[in-house]
Amino acid sequence: MKRSEVKKAQERTAELFARAGIVLTEEERGRIEVAGFGLGRLEEQGLELITYVNTDRYCAKELALFPGQTCPEHLHPPVNGEPGKMETFRCRWGTVYLYVVGERAGEIRAAVPAGSEAWYTVFREIVLGPGEQYTIPPGTKHWFQGGPEGAIVSEFSSTSRDEFDVFTDPSIVRIPVIEEDE
Amino acid sequence: MKRSEVKKAQERTAELFARAGIVLTEEERGRIEVAGFGLGRLEEQGLELITYVNTDRYCAKELALFPGQTCPEHLHPPVNGEPGKMETFRCRWGTVYLYVVGERAGEIRAAVPAGSEAWYTVFREIVLGPGEQYTIPPGTKHWFQGGPEGAIVSEFSSTSRDEFDVFTDPSIVRIPVIEEDE
Ligand SMILES: [Zn+2]
Ligand SMILES: [Zn+2]
Repeated sequence: MKRSEVKKAQERTAELFARAGIVLTEEERGRIEVAGFGLGRLEEQGLELITYVNTDRYCAKELALFPGQTCPEHLHPPVNGEPGKMETFRCRWGTVYLYVVGERAGEIRAAVPAGSEAWYTVFREIVLGPGEQYTIPPGTKHWFQGGPEGAIVSEFSSTSRDEFDVFTDPSIVRIPVIEEDE
Repeated sequence: MKRSEVKKAQERTAELFARAGIVLTEEERGRIEVAGFGLGRLEEQGLELITYVNTDRYCAKELALFPGQTCPEHLHPPVNGEPGKMETFRCRWGTVYLYVVGERAGEIRAAVPAGSEAWYTVFREIVLGPGEQYTIPPGTKHWFQGGPEGAIVSEFSSTSRDEFDVFTDPSIVRIPVIEEDE
């Protein structure tokens, strides 16, 4: 991703956080992570986040999804003999459509990103509005999409080791590579 | 504490959360914990909180402090061979005065609760405004007080086992006992 694109997405994310009443320091606004997953379609498949704290015991992040933006299907495998990352998503603002392993109940509300249908395989739907939350067990596939206004989601979890995440789409690169263009 | 006092404090806490833009479900509003620490002086020494999630790996809570209200000095000891609870306090709204082990730098901003001076022994001051945070190492004493408007603080931590907390004031009872008066 180009530096200019990262900066634009950071500004848009800071605006979403502000609208949701989430205050970041200036230092934090400058290190908002923009994850395009190496797919080159940030608006469609991407995620913006700030990591508040990540120790060897717990982690907390604030996630932002633009309207209709999808965080692609993945799971958190065991690392160094510890069970995979366990995650609680608490919606703070907007709506998030979350999909986990389990029975599909008819039509889903999210639109699977066109051209990537093969990499979306779990469809048990959980819709979270402000104040609603869901905990994803370790080692199980999940993906999620922002609703019509987007979403702000607090993530409470065990230690994050993003570099070990397993994405269903084999072309995904989790750790962003930024190309300096300015 | 009387049920009627608990209910009043729950309503006041729900108002503080709403003012800070923190959305709770109705179920959550009904189980806001009101901790008076058995001292009978909630306005002065007390804490209101909602536990979002507490698993064997991590915990997340939202804390509320009324203006000038103090959470008394305590520490989190090792439990079952695990190091004590590690806590990150992130101020979301208002101001919180936090005191931890370390060198005191002159006058402090908080007022130590009158009559309880003997039970406040650490005075390294950290002032947190919205978006600012601090991580308290396991097993170290700390206490904190709401500023002139009160404070809302997100607590990210390792697993909570409140019943093991060690308070400096030996008369403190951590787990609330509620007397039904209505
Ligand atoms: Zn995940
Ligand atoms: Zn504590």
